[in-house]
Amino acid sequence: MNTYDLIFKKREGGKLFLEELEYLIGGFVSGTIPQYQMSAFLMAVYFKGMDTEELSDFTNIMVNSGERLDLSDIEGITVDKHSTGGVGDGVSLILAPLAASLGLVVPMMSGRGLGHTGGTLDKLESIPGYRIDLSSQQFKDQLKEIGVAIIGQTKNIAPADKEMYSLRDVTATVDSIPLIAASVMSKKLAEGASSLVLDVKTGSGAFMREEKDACKLARSMIKIGRHNERNMAAVISDMNQPLGVAVGNACEIKQAVEIMSGGGPPDMREITVVLAGIMLKLSGNFNGLNEAKAVAEENLKNGSALKKFGDMIEAQGGDRQVCETPGNILKSPDYSAAVKSPEDGYLTAIDTRKIGLAALSLGAGRERVSDDVDHSAGINVLKKISDRVEKGEVLAELYSSKVKDMKPAADMYLNSLEIGRENVESPKLIREVIE
Amino acid sequence: MNTYDLIFKKREGGKLFLEELEYLIGGFVSGTIPQYQMSAFLMAVYFKGMDTEELSDFTNIMVNSGERLDLSDIEGITVDKHSTGGVGDGVSLILAPLAASLGLVVPMMSGRGLGHTGGTLDKLESIPGYRIDLSSQQFKDQLKEIGVAIIGQTKNIAPADKEMYSLRDVTATVDSIPLIAASVMSKKLAEGASSLVLDVKTGSGAFMREEKDACKLARSMIKIGRHNERNMAAVISDMNQPLGVAVGNACEIKQAVEIMSGGGPPDMREITVVLAGIMLKLSGNFNGLNEAKAVAEENLKNGSALKKFGDMIEAQGGDRQVCETPGNILKSPDYSAAVKSPEDGYLTAIDTRKIGLAALSLGAGRERVSDDVDHSAGINVLKKISDRVEKGEVLAELYSSKVKDMKPAADMYLNSLEIGRENVESPKLIREVIE
Repeated sequence: MNTYDLIFKKREGGKLFLEELEYLIGGFVSGTIPQYQMSAFLMAVYFKGMDTEELSDFTNIMVNSGERLDLSDIEGITVDKHSTGGVGDGVSLILAPLAASLGLVVPMMSGRGLGHTGGTLDKLESIPGYRIDLSSQQFKDQLKEIGVAIIGQTKNIAPADKEMYSLRDVTATVDSIPLIAASVMSKKLAEGASSLVLDVKTGSGAFMREEKDACKLARSMIKIGRHNERNMAAVISDMNQPLGVAVGNACEIKQAVEIMSGGGPPDMREITVVLAGIMLKLSGNFNGLNEAKAVAEENLKNGSALKKFGDMIEAQGGDRQVCETPGNILKSPDYSAAVKSPEDGYLTAIDTRKIGLAALSLGAGRERVSDDVDHSAGINVLKKISDRVEKGEVLAELYSSKVKDMKPAADMYLNSLEIGRENVESPKLIREVIE
Repeated sequence: MNTYDLIFKKREGGKLFLEELEYLIGGFVSGTIPQYQMSAFLMAVYFKGMDTEELSDFTNIMVNSGERLDLSDIEGITVDKHSTGGVGDGVSLILAPLAASLGLVVPMMSGRGLGHTGGTLDKLESIPGYRIDLSSQQFKDQLKEIGVAIIGQTKNIAPADKEMYSLRDVTATVDSIPLIAASVMSKKLAEGASSLVLDVKTGSGAFMREEKDACKLARSMIKIGRHNERNMAAVISDMNQPLGVAVGNACEIKQAVEIMSGGGPPDMREITVVLAGIMLKLSGNFNGLNEAKAVAEENLKNGSALKKFGDMIEAQGGDRQVCETPGNILKSPDYSAAVKSPEDGYLTAIDTRKIGLAALSLGAGRERVSDDVDHSAGINVLKKISDRVEKGEVLAELYSSKVKDMKPAADMYLNSLEIGRENVESPKLIREVIE
């Protein structure tokens, strides 16, 4: 076997077999295959794709490059959620304790924010004391005890994927549907949950701007999961505007507490309840989605989800008082500013990615993996698509403890909006449920 | 400017501007842009191509990465030929002295054989004493004196192309029409001839198996040349069988002497005369190709071309006696064997590449650039497409001084042939002349 032939085969649209992929990825990880051959291969995959079996093999080789969490001694049904990322997507903060409050076991390994998207870990770390670095044993012990934990990915999960991702990141081969599918699924398979719900975002703040690409990605990941005997489902959801009203870290925790107290923005409630309903259905206890959703909705209202959130925070070293008086516990921003409408009209479109970048510029996110985050920084989104706006009316509030001059971020925010005379319909939140 | 964006732009089918290409190639050569980014870029070019202006810029940057031969002080019209390579393609050996005997100046820098194709330099080096490593000054002095020189490429011709070719060679990005065009033309432009005739081969022994790809490549190279004010023309010629009857080094010299003595195989004569005719037309002295061909044909018969060949050999340190008694001067092979037909029928097809590989296995060629060549090794091709063959009749003779057991090479040769009951037409040698 030689690397040239494998690159050539893929370039010509051929299918690589298990041994060929093992040779390629193994050689790449061990350094016997140089990066310049792997990057040429990855670009060929970008253009020529992979078929289902090939993709499943590719994914499994990456899973097997590291640790595979064994959750078999945990009673109950383990279920996880993965979102492809967006702006204001703090769903995991609510969904994980909600699902646990419904009797499911939620072993969640999350990531940090990068670029225009936020990360669940950064959000949780705005709660003083919250630890994301549990060992595998601590993680499993906590799951047994309270049924939910949200931690950072342990180092040894799919190391081949990490290395390949670094190379893709500098060679314009990240946004390839099969490569994204394999990357996500290699981590999720290694993390060991038996069921997985995908939230694939589409729109101006998503990696997949086109809905058809989002569907393609979702179906590709579902295939890989089912090939590996996981229960799989997916939601295609809108990211043409920020989800909820909070974009940042502490402010998204505060919003999560509101929702688990029975209030909060309706879009965020809706998607969380849909995802929880699907999780319940996947667990086999419900036939109809509406019935499952009703049960989930109830646990947001009756305080069960919030209690579970408090249990998780406490178990991971954080201050559970955040559930009662978040304003006292979370760091307040030192500076704030209002973004005002320059004209009368309707908010007709949002370049959501730019809103994520405005939040990043306030300190809420990261340009590089090594950057620090200002947990108090963020944006309060007061107007969404199809809302009426008056000249001078406040469209959003900006917060930061790092950036005093908020003019650039305010301009960026305004720049992301289209205000028109004719109103438009609000984008539909749940585009498709793939079960 | 950053490399990622340039890879991305090309991946999306965009056109890179001069400064962008300068940044990319300059960074690659100086080492500030890593090979893994260049290989991803090259694979993107494989899939997305380059437009004429882009390709011309790309080529010129490679020309400017090294020395540019200045032939402006040489009187007369300088004209060169480039062949994309094949099996038995010893045309340059005859064409260069023939064109010089017709009053043109032929500054030819040639290459060595690699893989299934032979190289003009290896063939010339089978003449004892022949030196291919003249300095630029010696090269020009010889051109002034006798009008022809065939030497190796001086080291500093298009070094960026050399480096990029090495990377393409291991990343399955060699057979890209724009990249081939840029690579060939960067060397030819740097070598300074004012006119250039291309012989683009097509068929089973050519890099461009399909005629339409050969035409595309020819047109692409012509465009680059004309963009740089060179007189350009091209011939698309057949490589579905070896050219002439000799495949190897010393044996091709012997065949060249035969042709310049008025004999030799008709296909080799024909293509040489066509190319010489086109060269004469490009020089502006002839209007019709037939008239120009007749003049060229005459110089093969009357000994003028052979005399020029002898002058060139002598000037470059070789023994010009090879023109009179080649059998006494060239090394004879120690071993030989006959390949016999296993059945009666007609020779209907040849996998010409395999014949090149059979010659390589006898020692006539190189697997790696660093390999040595057995100048006495080669093949005498006795039957060509549409020839009648009888069972037991000799199809070819194999020669070597390195390989005693010729069974494997004989099997390879036989394996390359198709013998059928129904005869076929001989493939047309000159497919197209692009002027």
